[in-house]
Amino acid sequence: MIDKLAIIGVGLIGGSAALALKEEGVVKEVVGCGRGEANLIKAQSLGVIDHYTHDVGAAVKGADMVLLSVPLGAMRDTLSGMRGQLADHAVVTDAGSVKCSVVNDVKAVFGEIPGFFVPGHPIAGTERSGAEAAFTELYRNRRVILTPLQETDKDALLRVERMWQQCGADVVQMTVEHHDEVLAATSHLPHMLAFTLVDSLARMKENDEIFRFAAGGFRDFTRIASSNPVMWRDICIANQGYLNEMLTRFAGELHELAALLQSGDETGLLEIFQRAKKARDRYVDGVNKS
Amino acid sequence: MIDKLAIIGVGLIGGSAALALKEEGVVKEVVGCGRGEANLIKAQSLGVIDHYTHDVGAAVKGADMVLLSVPLGAMRDTLSGMRGQLADHAVVTDAGSVKCSVVNDVKAVFGEIPGFFVPGHPIAGTERSGAEAAFTELYRNRRVILTPLQETDKDALLRVERMWQQCGADVVQMTVEHHDEVLAATSHLPHMLAFTLVDSLARMKENDEIFRFAAGGFRDFTRIASSNPVMWRDICIANQGYLNEMLTRFAGELHELAALLQSGDETGLLEIFQRAKKARDRYVDGVNKS
Repeated sequence: MIDKLAIIGVGLIGGSAALALKEEGVVKEVVGCGRGEANLIKAQSLGVIDHYTHDVGAAVKGADMVLLSVPLGAMRDTLSGMRGQLADHAVVTDAGSVKCSVVNDVKAVFGEIPGFFVPGHPIAGTERSGAEAAFTELYRNRRVILTPLQETDKDALLRVERMWQQCGADVVQMTVEHHDEVLAATSHLPHMLAFTLVDSLARMKENDEIFRFAAGGFRDFTRIASSNPVMWRDICIANQGYLNEMLTRFAGELHELAALLQSGDETGLLEIFQRAKKARDRYVDGVNKS
Repeated sequence: MIDKLAIIGVGLIGGSAALALKEEGVVKEVVGCGRGEANLIKAQSLGVIDHYTHDVGAAVKGADMVLLSVPLGAMRDTLSGMRGQLADHAVVTDAGSVKCSVVNDVKAVFGEIPGFFVPGHPIAGTERSGAEAAFTELYRNRRVILTPLQETDKDALLRVERMWQQCGADVVQMTVEHHDEVLAATSHLPHMLAFTLVDSLARMKENDEIFRFAAGGFRDFTRIASSNPVMWRDICIANQGYLNEMLTRFAGELHELAALLQSGDETGLLEIFQRAKKARDRYVDGVNKS
């Protein structure tokens, strides 16, 4: 049972965790903390949080569980705000999409990695944001990756693991570096491609007409381009190294495809499409089975 | 009323048109034509077609409406097979995703553009294929683009337009070149990106794990990579010029994004993501209103 849960950043991610834990009856009190008054009022009226404050230090006071669900660019200030205010039995975890930058922020603020800190990343989300987007089922049958460090306290790790399981998630562990590399491939790179494609088309002269004749495939393909721009700017900067590697790799493969196209190499094109279809169909089968 | 409709290539596209016209009660007889016996038997048992033949000449005999819904690479042979077999009052239209190549095939086979030929392209589809994938509602509220030529008979154009309207579609006209350019941007390029991304990830060492931690965004983004590889090879080759232009354009934009990332240009990244989100949200609003 969590006595007092502090959600720092009450959006889709933090808000959905609060809703799920309330639904399970495993949290007594939820305090929300954020900048935007309107969002916090909305969160309270929707029952996502019980009360709120704009002050991080006040929010974490007496909390046994703190969930940082702010954009990556706001992590360091947020951590600074809670320094010296945490209860002795407090556990702090985060939901940032990149783990090395959060770990660096924690080190910078606390001078070391405190045992109570458990880096985490729920692999869930929609392109919507804000407390209004939160819903109880977001984490059901989704994966949450925890990337504990050598310094991480075993009990803290167990408590964070239990919290996400109570939200309905399947919790797995990996290293910080491995997380950032895998996510660069499956999430950060696709977002870059979708943003770039939509922006590229929007800047073409006949862009109105181009969008008018887009089919359902385009809608799905570009859904992630409706994601929060600030959040994604932060992710890019935070995962610059691995993302750049993936972008370079992808650009190389695209260059090869263009060469096949220009030389009219039907066999080469077909091979790529066949391999891709096979991999994608197998991936979907895997998702449906899990 | 269509007395005899010949569907050449009984898959998602041709099959769904047949089902929709039957549902509307505006077609008396549907003959299917294709290579695969199993698919044609399935189509007949599902009521998509009334009977079938493997011979194109036999299929079009006496038909007042012929719909070519074969892959682009099979168009020329198909057209050759129907030459000299068409009824005097027959109208021929196609559903190819690229229009210049079909028009070239028609010219090559008939020596000119016959008045009875109306090039067309229904902007609808799913990643599934075959007669089993066909469904009555596929064209409802979808757009069908017709690209009539100077030689195209007005009455033939009207009859094809009416047929697609009876399927529930909104019919618009544009030139062959404009169609191919717009579709290169909104459909062919996104498919290339999705195929390339999935293939690129599938070839990485840890590909099993990479796919395991992919989220919902990845699933949507890559849905089109499950499309028919042969169909897409044909589209690439048929629309080589415009597609290559779009690929080059996109590669340039991706290069600029990578430069912003490498220099840590937060403002530049944010601008791209904001413009993209705005354009994508506006596009979705437009789709929802139409």
